[in-house]
Amino acid sequence: MSTRKIQIFDTTLRDGEQVPGCKLNTPEKIEIARNLEKLGVDVIEAGFPISSPGDFKSVMEISKAVTEPIVCGLSRAVVKDIETAAEALKYAKRPRIHTGIGTSDSHILHKFNSNRDEIIERAVAAVKYAKRFVEDVEFYAEDAGRTDNEYLARVCEAVVAAGATVLNIPDTTGYCLPHEYGAKIKYLKENVKGIDKAILSTHCHNDLGLATANSIEGVIHGAGQIECTINGIGERAGNTSLEEVVMIMRQHPYLNLITGVEAKMLYPISQLVSEKMQMFVQPNKAIVGSNAFAHSSGIHQDGVIKNRETYEIMDPSDVGVDQSLIVLTARSGRAALAYRAHKIGYQLTKDALDEVYERFLAVADRKKEVYDEDIHEMMKDVKIELSA
Amino acid sequence: MSTRKIQIFDTTLRDGEQVPGCKLNTPEKIEIARNLEKLGVDVIEAGFPISSPGDFKSVMEISKAVTEPIVCGLSRAVVKDIETAAEALKYAKRPRIHTGIGTSDSHILHKFNSNRDEIIERAVAAVKYAKRFVEDVEFYAEDAGRTDNEYLARVCEAVVAAGATVLNIPDTTGYCLPHEYGAKIKYLKENVKGIDKAILSTHCHNDLGLATANSIEGVIHGAGQIECTINGIGERAGNTSLEEVVMIMRQHPYLNLITGVEAKMLYPISQLVSEKMQMFVQPNKAIVGSNAFAHSSGIHQDGVIKNRETYEIMDPSDVGVDQSLIVLTARSGRAALAYRAHKIGYQLTKDALDEVYERFLAVADRKKEVYDEDIHEMMKDVKIELSA
Repeated sequence: MSTRKIQIFDTTLRDGEQVPGCKLNTPEKIEIARNLEKLGVDVIEAGFPISSPGDFKSVMEISKAVTEPIVCGLSRAVVKDIETAAEALKYAKRPRIHTGIGTSDSHILHKFNSNRDEIIERAVAAVKYAKRFVEDVEFYAEDAGRTDNEYLARVCEAVVAAGATVLNIPDTTGYCLPHEYGAKIKYLKENVKGIDKAILSTHCHNDLGLATANSIEGVIHGAGQIECTINGIGERAGNTSLEEVVMIMRQHPYLNLITGVEAKMLYPISQLVSEKMQMFVQPNKAIVGSNAFAHSSGIHQDGVIKNRETYEIMDPSDVGVDQSLIVLTARSGRAALAYRAHKIGYQLTKDALDEVYERFLAVADRKKEVYDEDIHEMMKDVKIELSA
Repeated sequence: MSTRKIQIFDTTLRDGEQVPGCKLNTPEKIEIARNLEKLGVDVIEAGFPISSPGDFKSVMEISKAVTEPIVCGLSRAVVKDIETAAEALKYAKRPRIHTGIGTSDSHILHKFNSNRDEIIERAVAAVKYAKRFVEDVEFYAEDAGRTDNEYLARVCEAVVAAGATVLNIPDTTGYCLPHEYGAKIKYLKENVKGIDKAILSTHCHNDLGLATANSIEGVIHGAGQIECTINGIGERAGNTSLEEVVMIMRQHPYLNLITGVEAKMLYPISQLVSEKMQMFVQPNKAIVGSNAFAHSSGIHQDGVIKNRETYEIMDPSDVGVDQSLIVLTARSGRAALAYRAHKIGYQLTKDALDEVYERFLAVADRKKEVYDEDIHEMMKDVKIELSA
């Protein structure tokens, strides 16, 4: 199997920013865009230009500020939206208009009060109109996750014929199971005429905690692009986490899927986005959470001290985190205590360790975490050997 | 396909508590255990009794405090651990001892300095010893995710023959991809002699963001129990989120997998655990995050106002959340503004709405979120109609 490069389409500044309380101003967006460029993403979705004057301005300024990645602007399948997106992107070196329409029965009926054939006509018209302004036009079939595959294939075929270069298959409500989403991508890959002229793209939401798994099943089954955000931010339960999909592909080399992302920037850019958006990352967030590489149980600490790979599949420094942390709590064993004590200057005999460990447990049962100063305190009157 | 009931094994108080800074005292643990009982979990893993006197006491007190769920205590495959677990569980109405040993080559070599045959002997001896104290003995094959399937099947066969009632197949490092973990469970289901005498259990970690997907693939392929924690807390990037797997099974009825969990308690218990452990839940956490049901983009708000199911696959009240929130930001459209304005007493004509919307966008581009008081301010001097 030959190696495929998967395009990373970052939508932190568009779908990611679609979050209550997360409004960024233009200079903040430019700073994040420049860092996304350094991170090595292939596409930056910079905003939804028709949605507000501030968003329009941000897309325009980001178009000027970055040169390597494609800059993409969102639009509905509406003339004014497309024109505004094209205008906002006019300074982009590599512009892409992202346009589309809902294709599930729920969207066709409740949102558009329309029918399947008319939706295809509107989709085709939107793609053709966008092609007047730019070569690179991505089409989204909103709620594709709940759209039946046969109709979805018809939509895709029509928009590819109209010139769409990328086909975005969003699981808008986060409903698909991984094997279902993978099967949907596979079906399109096998049944859409002209599919080789376009790239299939995953766009998954995390309402049931499956966005990452769905995206990975998508690329395994033929998608060539993943839409994602830093820290998985976005509306409701958010989007696919960029850092998770990138590290999954990297840690499973037999998948033969690579990206252009510089992994060492994952942690710093996570911190930047969290700070600018005031959207905190929970400690147990994969890859970038403050505890992602912290071990506190005795069994695990002992294993990590003996050999890092016993409990760690990634080297924290690979993603820009300084080192795995050994945190002392009531769950910690003798090995962890001896390790930390050694780090702060004590070389304990076995008997001394037994004695200190008793004191340690008494302290740890009272406190959430045991710090170096507590250890110094415990060492008083213990028969110890100081290390060299 | 007949309906299968999946056992929910909650390890919030054991693996979940194995988190830096999360130490709970015994009364707090009892309170959480009582709520887990009300939630309807099948098993509560209450702690690791040998690890500290505080943990021993907590397991003993929880054993007295709950009656419906099985109460489980962790032990290594070590005589003293098993005896201590049995002692801590002596008041439990339905006690289970959870014992086990590492089975991957990495664990066998680096952690135990042992070999495959010796590990099987130790595993069998541990299960047999635990059976002296209790009928219900769960065996964990630590790092099963990185253990080759053929050897893992040998281990499972030996411990089932020794009396193990549950076989826990942990993906200890969170490395497996969903289809791989599903295939592992399927392999064991098909190749372990006597497997029908035991329940296969998933125990997944979230280092790459795949714990939930792996657990679901596990039960689809024959596992009968999922080990998980409230809010997905736990060492490093945590464990499988209880709320996610429960809602996935509930929202996909064609899987024919049910649980005994009372979904309406999911949000309240999430809040309780977050507060007691001082482990905050990020806003974009699936099911229980503060934004999980909040819509801020214009497209989505418009859809939700027209028909809730356009963008929501769950009714927030199903998981104990009061209502979906419509939050006004610069991404919000006219429909959302009109909806909120109506809620606070304004019935706008189309022209009036256009006028107010311009003002709204100017405010929203400056502010992260627009509140009711801002709307009252915008209404000044606008030709409006007050609603009845």
